[in-house]
Amino acid sequence: MAIPLRVRYFEADQQGVVFNMWYLAYFEDARNAYLEAVGYPLQALLASGHDIQVVAVNIAWKGSVRWGDTDVEVVAHVSRIGESSLTFDFEVKRRDVTLVTGQTVYVIIAADGSGKRPVPADLRAAVTAANRNREG
Amino acid sequence: MAIPLRVRYFEADQQGVVFNMWYLAYFEDARNAYLEAVGYPLQALLASGHDIQVVAVNIAWKGSVRWGDTDVEVVAHVSRIGESSLTFDFEVKRRDVTLVTGQTVYVIIAADGSGKRPVPADLRAAVTAANRNREG
Amino acid sequence: MAIPLRVRYFEADQQGVVFNMWYLAYFEDARNAYLEAVGYPLQALLASGHDIQVVAVNIAWKGSVRWGDTDVEVVAHVSRIGESSLTFDFEVKRRDVTLVTGQTVYVIIAADGSGKRPVPADLRAAVTAANRNREG
Amino acid sequence: MAIPLRVRYFEADQQGVVFNMWYLAYFEDARNAYLEAVGYPLQALLASGHDIQVVAVNIAWKGSVRWGDTDVEVVAHVSRIGESSLTFDFEVKRRDVTLVTGQTVYVIIAADGSGKRPVPADLRAAVTAANRNREG
Repeated sequence: MAIPLRVRYFEADQQGVVFNMWYLAYFEDARNAYLEAVGYPLQALLASGHDIQVVAVNIAWKGSVRWGDTDVEVVAHVSRIGESSLTFDFEVKRRDVTLVTGQTVYVIIAADGSGKRPVPADLRAAVTAANRNREG
Repeated sequence: MAIPLRVRYFEADQQGVVFNMWYLAYFEDARNAYLEAVGYPLQALLASGHDIQVVAVNIAWKGSVRWGDTDVEVVAHVSRIGESSLTFDFEVKRRDVTLVTGQTVYVIIAADGSGKRPVPADLRAAVTAANRNREG
Repeated sequence: MAIPLRVRYFEADQQGVVFNMWYLAYFEDARNAYLEAVGYPLQALLASGHDIQVVAVNIAWKGSVRWGDTDVEVVAHVSRIGESSLTFDFEVKRRDVTLVTGQTVYVIIAADGSGKRPVPADLRAAVTAANRNREG
Repeated sequence: MAIPLRVRYFEADQQGVVFNMWYLAYFEDARNAYLEAVGYPLQALLASGHDIQVVAVNIAWKGSVRWGDTDVEVVAHVSRIGESSLTFDFEVKRRDVTLVTGQTVYVIIAADGSGKRPVPADLRAAVTAANRNREG
């Protein structure tokens, strides 16, 4: 699952490269596109009385992205699915070159603030099917 | 009513100056500080079942602000108070030099989405008192 | 010339609608897409030793845009071309309904900081041709 | 070394809490304030022909920050200083409660793009002195 990355002009800072925080915006976009692609959009999760909370992120840079770059995409997949959590792995790539990698851990919570919830069965099934296709 | 302006590094773009949209963030900050200073913070407005909605903005640049600039402030006052609306005027100044001016028009609405509401009497009184001090 | 508008999750604030400043990001995107579409991308302008500076903006809201909205687009055209300046008009539309309008005035400057420059002849010709097509 | 954290209204998303990416903006602010406090501001580094590049970040959330929160601060210190790199540790705290922790690794590079450089001796000395004071 990959989405094209189009850098907005202002996301590049005085060094001419994308400022670090915007990668978390790109990852969020890619996660939402992933959920849509596997048939369980974030809206479905919200409508079922759940919400999703980020509890950890990490990002590592080998290269950088500039405004005007073409052929850059963000690749996302779920690398781990726990009782209440989903770990997404992200790669920002220019053609075959990996520029930036990242990982975010999300926890499924009740929308009413009453705490953690198991990953809904439909979401778990959708992710598992996507992973099978990815490996298959 | 003035607040110091501290530009964050990433708000300056590849041209080395603050990207235009961030001024609307600064104005929002200055508006909130103004409401607090006159004794009617936004939280009080929200707690009273109202909300505030921007309906128009304009900004004009005579100069620019850079990351690392000191002695820059945003000056705010209410230039017009209507039945349901408040017009704020903003000036971004480096010492005595005006660099950027702006104006935002807000409408007071019911928090339940049922439409416009008169400016609450306490808020009107607070703004009127602030304007009297300003002119006096 | 229209570009689809895809709101990022974090651009919607606690009111559930896009925070005002992000419209200036959308307008910048639409302006860059316009310049590309008429065959004179911003990169060409920069490569010719020029730069572009915003000197005035205004925005007016009749409606709002939410995260997850589909069928929203930003329409851009040049409404005025002066000796050194270009005025862009923007409309944010959901199908046929105009939600937000805006206008930005840009001045062409020398990249070396030596001040205003005439709009390059190629850019003027490209805009004029685009306007002719638009009206024709 | 601690800086007060004032959340801007729009940094809180529809969940009512600060959207994850803004913490990287706060960390950048805290890092710049740290460098200033130890007597080696980023401007000094830039003026010496160097620049600073983030190569890795991580953030972990135990709690969250909301717009309007008071008594929140970002604490920064350098936890490791290598040949060419500096690792900053950050804590976002509400009074004595740690809400968010983070770490960023920066590499010192030549401003001309020719690659890594040793941490300047003055910067190393300033950080070492700050750490001695911290522990002492």
